[in-house]
Amino acid sequence: MITHPAFPPEPWVIRERGLDLSVLAQSESVFALSNGHLGLRGNLDEGEPHGLPGTYLNSVFEFRPLPYAEAGYGYPETGQSIIDVTNGKLIRLLVEDEPFDVRYGELRSHERVLSLRDGVLRRTVDWVSPSGRRMQISSARLVSFTQRASAAIAYEVRPVDAPLYIVLQSELVANEQMPTTSADPRAAAALESPLRPEQRTAYDAHARLVHSTRASGRRVGVAMDHTVDCPANVRTSVECSPDTARFTLTTRLAPGQSLRVVKFLAYGWSSVRSIPAISAQVEAALTLARQSGWEGLLAEQRQYLDDYWARADVDVDGDPQVQQAVRYALFQVLQASARAERRPIPAKGLTGPGYDGHAFWDTESYVLPTLTYTTPHAAADALRWRRRTLPTARKGARQLTLDGATFAWRTINGDESSGYWPAGTAALHINADVADAVIRLIQATGDEAFEREAGLPLLVETARLWASLGCQHADGAFRIDGVTGPDEYSALANNNVYTNLMAQRNLRGAAEVAKRHPDEAAGLKVTGDEIAAWARAADAMFVPYDEKLGVHPQAEHFTDLAVWDFAHTRPDQYPMLLHFPYLQLYRKQVVKQADLVMALYKRGDAFTADEKARDFAYYEPLTVRDSSLSASIQAVIAAEVGHLDLAYDYLGEAARMDLDDLEHNTRDGLHIASLAGAWIALVAGFGGMRDSGGSLMFAPRLPAPLARLTFSVLWHGQRLCVNVTRTDATYSLEGDDPVELTHHGRSFRLTAGQPVTHPIPPVEPGPRPSQPPGREPGRRGSA
Amino acid sequence: MITHPAFPPEPWVIRERGLDLSVLAQSESVFALSNGHLGLRGNLDEGEPHGLPGTYLNSVFEFRPLPYAEAGYGYPETGQSIIDVTNGKLIRLLVEDEPFDVRYGELRSHERVLSLRDGVLRRTVDWVSPSGRRMQISSARLVSFTQRASAAIAYEVRPVDAPLYIVLQSELVANEQMPTTSADPRAAAALESPLRPEQRTAYDAHARLVHSTRASGRRVGVAMDHTVDCPANVRTSVECSPDTARFTLTTRLAPGQSLRVVKFLAYGWSSVRSIPAISAQVEAALTLARQSGWEGLLAEQRQYLDDYWARADVDVDGDPQVQQAVRYALFQVLQASARAERRPIPAKGLTGPGYDGHAFWDTESYVLPTLTYTTPHAAADALRWRRRTLPTARKGARQLTLDGATFAWRTINGDESSGYWPAGTAALHINADVADAVIRLIQATGDEAFEREAGLPLLVETARLWASLGCQHADGAFRIDGVTGPDEYSALANNNVYTNLMAQRNLRGAAEVAKRHPDEAAGLKVTGDEIAAWARAADAMFVPYDEKLGVHPQAEHFTDLAVWDFAHTRPDQYPMLLHFPYLQLYRKQVVKQADLVMALYKRGDAFTADEKARDFAYYEPLTVRDSSLSASIQAVIAAEVGHLDLAYDYLGEAARMDLDDLEHNTRDGLHIASLAGAWIALVAGFGGMRDSGGSLMFAPRLPAPLARLTFSVLWHGQRLCVNVTRTDATYSLEGDDPVELTHHGRSFRLTAGQPVTHPIPPVEPGPRPSQPPGREPGRRGSA
Repeated sequence: MITHPAFPPEPWVIRERGLDLSVLAQSESVFALSNGHLGLRGNLDEGEPHGLPGTYLNSVFEFRPLPYAEAGYGYPETGQSIIDVTNGKLIRLLVEDEPFDVRYGELRSHERVLSLRDGVLRRTVDWVSPSGRRMQISSARLVSFTQRASAAIAYEVRPVDAPLYIVLQSELVANEQMPTTSADPRAAAALESPLRPEQRTAYDAHARLVHSTRASGRRVGVAMDHTVDCPANVRTSVECSPDTARFTLTTRLAPGQSLRVVKFLAYGWSSVRSIPAISAQVEAALTLARQSGWEGLLAEQRQYLDDYWARADVDVDGDPQVQQAVRYALFQVLQASARAERRPIPAKGLTGPGYDGHAFWDTESYVLPTLTYTTPHAAADALRWRRRTLPTARKGARQLTLDGATFAWRTINGDESSGYWPAGTAALHINADVADAVIRLIQATGDEAFEREAGLPLLVETARLWASLGCQHADGAFRIDGVTGPDEYSALANNNVYTNLMAQRNLRGAAEVAKRHPDEAAGLKVTGDEIAAWARAADAMFVPYDEKLGVHPQAEHFTDLAVWDFAHTRPDQYPMLLHFPYLQLYRKQVVKQADLVMALYKRGDAFTADEKARDFAYYEPLTVRDSSLSASIQAVIAAEVGHLDLAYDYLGEAARMDLDDLEHNTRDGLHIASLAGAWIALVAGFGGMRDSGGSLMFAPRLPAPLARLTFSVLWHGQRLCVNVTRTDATYSLEGDDPVELTHHGRSFRLTAGQPVTHPIPPVEPGPRPSQPPGREPGRRGSA
Repeated sequence: MITHPAFPPEPWVIRERGLDLSVLAQSESVFALSNGHLGLRGNLDEGEPHGLPGTYLNSVFEFRPLPYAEAGYGYPETGQSIIDVTNGKLIRLLVEDEPFDVRYGELRSHERVLSLRDGVLRRTVDWVSPSGRRMQISSARLVSFTQRASAAIAYEVRPVDAPLYIVLQSELVANEQMPTTSADPRAAAALESPLRPEQRTAYDAHARLVHSTRASGRRVGVAMDHTVDCPANVRTSVECSPDTARFTLTTRLAPGQSLRVVKFLAYGWSSVRSIPAISAQVEAALTLARQSGWEGLLAEQRQYLDDYWARADVDVDGDPQVQQAVRYALFQVLQASARAERRPIPAKGLTGPGYDGHAFWDTESYVLPTLTYTTPHAAADALRWRRRTLPTARKGARQLTLDGATFAWRTINGDESSGYWPAGTAALHINADVADAVIRLIQATGDEAFEREAGLPLLVETARLWASLGCQHADGAFRIDGVTGPDEYSALANNNVYTNLMAQRNLRGAAEVAKRHPDEAAGLKVTGDEIAAWARAADAMFVPYDEKLGVHPQAEHFTDLAVWDFAHTRPDQYPMLLHFPYLQLYRKQVVKQADLVMALYKRGDAFTADEKARDFAYYEPLTVRDSSLSASIQAVIAAEVGHLDLAYDYLGEAARMDLDDLEHNTRDGLHIASLAGAWIALVAGFGGMRDSGGSLMFAPRLPAPLARLTFSVLWHGQRLCVNVTRTDATYSLEGDDPVELTHHGRSFRLTAGQPVTHPIPPVEPGPRPSQPPGREPGRRGSA
């Protein structure tokens, strides 16, 4: 766990002073750079020491067998694992006869700074070699948002006290040796030497390697070129072997003289293109990057991010840590998705191998709500990726003897890669989550082309799933039995409230969109009868309620179960999945992550305010937050029911999940959904934004420590800005079309150039609900 | 599937006329010989062709990894698989220069006869070699019940038309090559070359091989010796290599002359004894067998079986097929258990590698009820095996954070070997099944020593499990949530009626026995408070009931689920577990095997006659009998509620499961529980015997095709004989102590030498219940 003050709370940068090797792997994740297509972990330039080396290309994975001690019908036999592709980040340095290695000699200073303004990771080092030679080393690294295949590194070295011989080796290395992985199921399965060499070339300051994966047939090309700037004479050479290419520079520098090298990298991959085609592709990208030059790339990067912050920034007055964390979160959400372009957005982005690089429901339920209002084209692309996997999802449904489509619980290429079906394939809510994201995007953008091409087929096929999965009970209710909701400490329950309500939204959304596009719907063989059946199922959807307790059970009869014995659960027994058998977790009232509370948020329209308050109070003492997906949603509902301090605590947890390594597994990659959840906690929590009714509703209210909160959302291409203080909220619009909004239940019309201010009504929450002993969020709100 | 008339319905033999190689593997299981310690599949003497070679020693297994695509806390990582030990059955024959192989030349006749009277498998062959040499070959094989380490084969060969050179090779072969296994999860994992050679020796007509397993540390010795009887001159030699020992006889026989060889085999194994000790052990056993000689072994075998049939035979008048099948069933139950002696009784006995040689709840729930009344010492031994595994079972409970003990769902050595916990470890009813078998044995035998030494600790530790597993609900009911009942098409349900009622019996039984043995109970730290808590839990045990339908749900709310769409399930989609995902099976009303109906039998005292009739009628149309454990129990309840024809159909299915290969997997071994179930179907079904109230109750009633049914049960060492006709039942007793019995609800006292006859009241059942289309049992009762 990274402890304070590792990253001082600066508004626009993440700064690491000093280098703590015990948290190296975590910091590699925190300082990862990515554009959604190419990802580089924040490994040190010189490669070692490392926590976990990592270079990733979206959708470059290898197959691996999924073994079963006892097999069952339909179990997937092959899974996918993201692989560490050729490492192009390496720049090794030899000072006289000593390699620069922070573990040796004396590290006088070491600072890394990630700028959220220009997306560059800068490093400055003051090092004295074991034999007493002092060097200043600096590097800057970026993964281009504007040139998705490219990355660049500016590296500079300067002797301080005496003239020194310098050797610099810039490398490409394939099939890096990986540290042994942990037994934690949330980590990844390591694949040894996944890349088969196919082609290599090296000349001048340039080299290229082409490899391919054995089973998945991914061909990966990477090329590097360099510009060199040095007052002294520099001798260079270049060489390559099947798994390594190396550009070597040798010089002798006087004190104050510096050798500066810019390394340009270009990556490309394909499962269909030939070696010459891939080679040409990466060379073209490399040419473009070299042509832009370091300064050009930097300027493009800054411009890209200026645009982003202009539309997406959230300004928090009163808590520098939260201010920093939410900007970091927004930056990483962008890094995970910006150029993913019809490829998945993995749970860890491209920052680490955790969860094997798979995408889950996290994408649609956490990342896309954030992207929808800040970077809608990326949200649309992610859903177009789902659309691309529909044929596989249809096959999945057939295998389950269901109609429509069932999206894989975890996957890279669309095929189910989940090896434990009760908490994988059975979590069919993912299909309603996809539909929910589609409905939200259509509402927020009005993008007709998307609606027709991707939205309609996604809604239709998921609606068909629910229609065939559920059944009309004798009492008239439409039941969905034996599926798993979001809470992974329950499985295979009947009528999970979240699932049923999301299915209802799915069915209604499909009916609406199908009616809007009758021709396209007919092309999908949708009939009027089918639409009517969806509407009937939605209207009859069963939502269980415990009359005695006056709360909604997470799933039917959940509240009959014994409550987990939290009093006798030790702090070191969390996360519980690593210390208790599913057999016991499933049969008790213990909640890993927001499930019913997730329903209170995503389907807030289906609950009264009183129900929300009682439900939230009931589930808080049962929820252990062993998932990073929980805190943000608890923040939203805590805020809604008036527990603003508690909401603030949860916001802090969601936002600082990775900066503070709260789940102790940031080493495997960032928690992209939790980071997106930080935005949700602020905007839906303290901004009180809701969108499930078709228009935007706000019910802002700030916790004591915050003086002001300002955020923007894109609505049909227009920028809507909300500025919240302790007493009132001001809404303003940039755009031509007036927007109908709601403030604390009161509708109003907002027109460009005419900001509207509404007072914030007071709230009287009940007593602060308790959490399981030892699982209270870190106190932030009571400050 | 073996089709009629493979085995003509003879009362005391199983006769196979001709040799159908397409069902060779099935016949190898049907003709398997075993004494519970050593098992030989019915492989042809000459080894090939074979379906599946097999020689087994009880508890000689190898470990194998249990892999998981996604691991979870507490999953067992190592499983056990029974191994094929050194094959001592082999006697190969060379006639002139041609090996005797039934696939070549002309097989004029081939007959195998298994005698249930003397436990010998006899084979007679009339074969003409490809070059026209005609031979008569006969063999007889037994696995001794009286000398548990020993088997013997008498082999005789005789030229018919012309003098012939004969070479006979009698072998021991270790690490036989196995045919590739099927993907059916009910089959076994094959282990290649599991035996590591340790010692070999050969001299005269004698040879010995000692091997050991790599990981499980089982040392296995086998020795053979031979007596030779031949009028002609016989040259012999003997040799051995690490995995093979061979005794070779060469002679020239005139027509009518015969070479007769008796091969004596002795096996021994240990996990602790040294090579010399194991060698000495098998040589001692071999010496004893040779001293007895073939005739001596045969006489002992006949005497052992005469004793068995005298106490255990069931006489059925009116259906020769059922008569044959029930005797075959009783013979195989004896073979599986007679000399198991504190080792497990596997689901397949020692007849094949199916289910990896594991023992399940089958033992206590099907095999032990039969053994308790026919061979009680074997039942006691099987429970003493459970007692031996208590330390492991206690560890199992600790890992589940439960008190007491949880016995492995499938195991050889006591360690959990189940790789799919929802249908394995979660089937905690196995613990109540063990307790039930203990209570039954104590009731039926009055064996005080067993009760104190094995019964008490087994009852106490299983009662502790239930007390900690269940919980008192706010409404006062004692609930057991989230466990799996017998029906494997459901999992992780709340308040499975069978489980709850069996747990109730377990808790009460433990309380009673602990009170009877206060000192021993105190040694187990049982307190009066604990006993009182057991009693309270038992009294408050929740038994769900569906008031609307007027039936018991298999588990709470089971009857709310959708009924499986049987109309659209094709005949080739059974067994359903090979054609449908668990996800769908679990969420529908579809029953693999008797579950609630099992409760109606095992806890008949907890239901009214009316409830039984309604419950049975409800579950019949839902029960597909994809498990061989179902038919016998359905027979019992069908008979009780008056559907005698249907009961008779189920009896036929249970009894002829393996003779007719009804489940298409007899190749992997016999269904010992179904065979034991044939006895249960007759005695508890048409005999109407119940024992859950502490005494024996009968309610006999015969189906139309049967004129008479006679069976015996042992009760406190006395033989109680029941002779049932269509109109009345006559009870007689051999023993000194009068017994209190019940006939159709009327109590009476039975004294030795004074048979009592009671009339059988008429019954008026409702309409015959239906089964899922295509899953009706074969009609037998309507004949």
